[in-house]
Amino acid sequence: AILTAIDAQFAAPRLRGLHALVTSGPTHEPIDPVRYIANRSSGAQGTAIAAALHRLGARVTFVTGPATTPPPPGPAVIRVETAAEMHAAVKAALPADIAVFAAAVADWRIANAASSKMKKGAGRPELSLTQNPDILADIAGMTEGRPSLVVGFAAETDDVLANARAKLARKGCDWIVANDVSPATGIMGGAENAVTLVTSDGAEDWPRASKEAVADRLAHRIAEALARDTAR
Amino acid sequence: AILTAIDAQFAAPRLRGLHALVTSGPTHEPIDPVRYIANRSSGAQGTAIAAALHRLGARVTFVTGPATTPPPPGPAVIRVETAAEMHAAVKAALPADIAVFAAAVADWRIANAASSKMKKGAGRPELSLTQNPDILADIAGMTEGRPSLVVGFAAETDDVLANARAKLARKGCDWIVANDVSPATGIMGGAENAVTLVTSDGAEDWPRASKEAVADRLAHRIAEALARDTAR
Repeated sequence: AILTAIDAQFAAPRLRGLHALVTSGPTHEPIDPVRYIANRSSGAQGTAIAAALHRLGARVTFVTGPATTPPPPGPAVIRVETAAEMHAAVKAALPADIAVFAAAVADWRIANAASSKMKKGAGRPELSLTQNPDILADIAGMTEGRPSLVVGFAAETDDVLANARAKLARKGCDWIVANDVSPATGIMGGAENAVTLVTSDGAEDWPRASKEAVADRLAHRIAEALARDTAR
Repeated sequence: AILTAIDAQFAAPRLRGLHALVTSGPTHEPIDPVRYIANRSSGAQGTAIAAALHRLGARVTFVTGPATTPPPPGPAVIRVETAAEMHAAVKAALPADIAVFAAAVADWRIANAASSKMKKGAGRPELSLTQNPDILADIAGMTEGRPSLVVGFAAETDDVLANARAKLARKGCDWIVANDVSPATGIMGGAENAVTLVTSDGAEDWPRASKEAVADRLAHRIAEALARDTAR
């Protein structure tokens, strides 16, 4: 049994020679020089995924928004603040074999961001929002040079599975890792995650576990999927 | 000269027996369960002020938003997230002899914060803003039980001195500590500060120094002012 286990470990699919791109953390969208729109992503799950892919031998590029979790040792780290900057950094980091978009990218930015601090006396400000680039859909839809495996995340508070399935179809990515970020779950900003992996084959609920354990399982699934691709 | 210096140190006005209330850090105003409006305050200056007042012997209550700087050892720490929560915590912490409002409190909150995560498909969301309580003006304007010394902060990007003088008059506080938080200064979120102390007697520019040095100078000025009050 011990020999079998060692055997299995040595036989585990590896990612040596492959380039994995991982995004992580929130983005900050400026309102004026001192104010911005943020979200509660800590970057913990994306950081754990980058570390797990690195352990499997991949060369990892880690594009991170202003996260509270420090970036993992090993991967090349590219720091960005806004969704537009993250989009540019992702495109600059291509080509990649694997792209995991774990960042909680702001859907909107402020169209009329002020260059001076907004004053209270000037009445109630109007925040005019405009849609940010959709990094996941953009990369998943590439006709040339698309990564072999494009994984998106869906952070939902309601109808998690239905929203994740719809997102998989809408974005054209290969997998969606869906999770419930309702405040009651303690997942966003917390140490644990309970995800559903949605693929074209169906949906698998993974048991709640540390973000590191979820990352390891995902990294191994990615290595298996790429090994199958290669064996074809 | 050495004896004079020691003498001066022992003769320095102290704050033993007095209660100082210090607010610090940003506030976060929720948009929906995962998104919020924030600002770039690190809490470093407020934390340093609380520590300096504590060193001078005051009993310090430290009301802090979600700051990146850890709170100082010594003071009683009350953690809040929104401006409304900070307002309630400040009122609950009274009476106080000294109130230093160093927090970068959001002027506005979202009137129509969503209880579910906003979806991109639903079109461009309207963020309807409503004014937050004005903690500084509220406490400075107390007719009964007002702290003897109420100090506000003015974080400005333009016309720093003029805006600070106007704020002193408008809020009814005793002093304004004004600083220039234009991104080019590196002050907001940085280690140093260059402030102008605005009082009814005029305005003093203090040289750029570490936030700890600015806090020490402010704490000593507070102690002198209260000693003068007591001696009257």
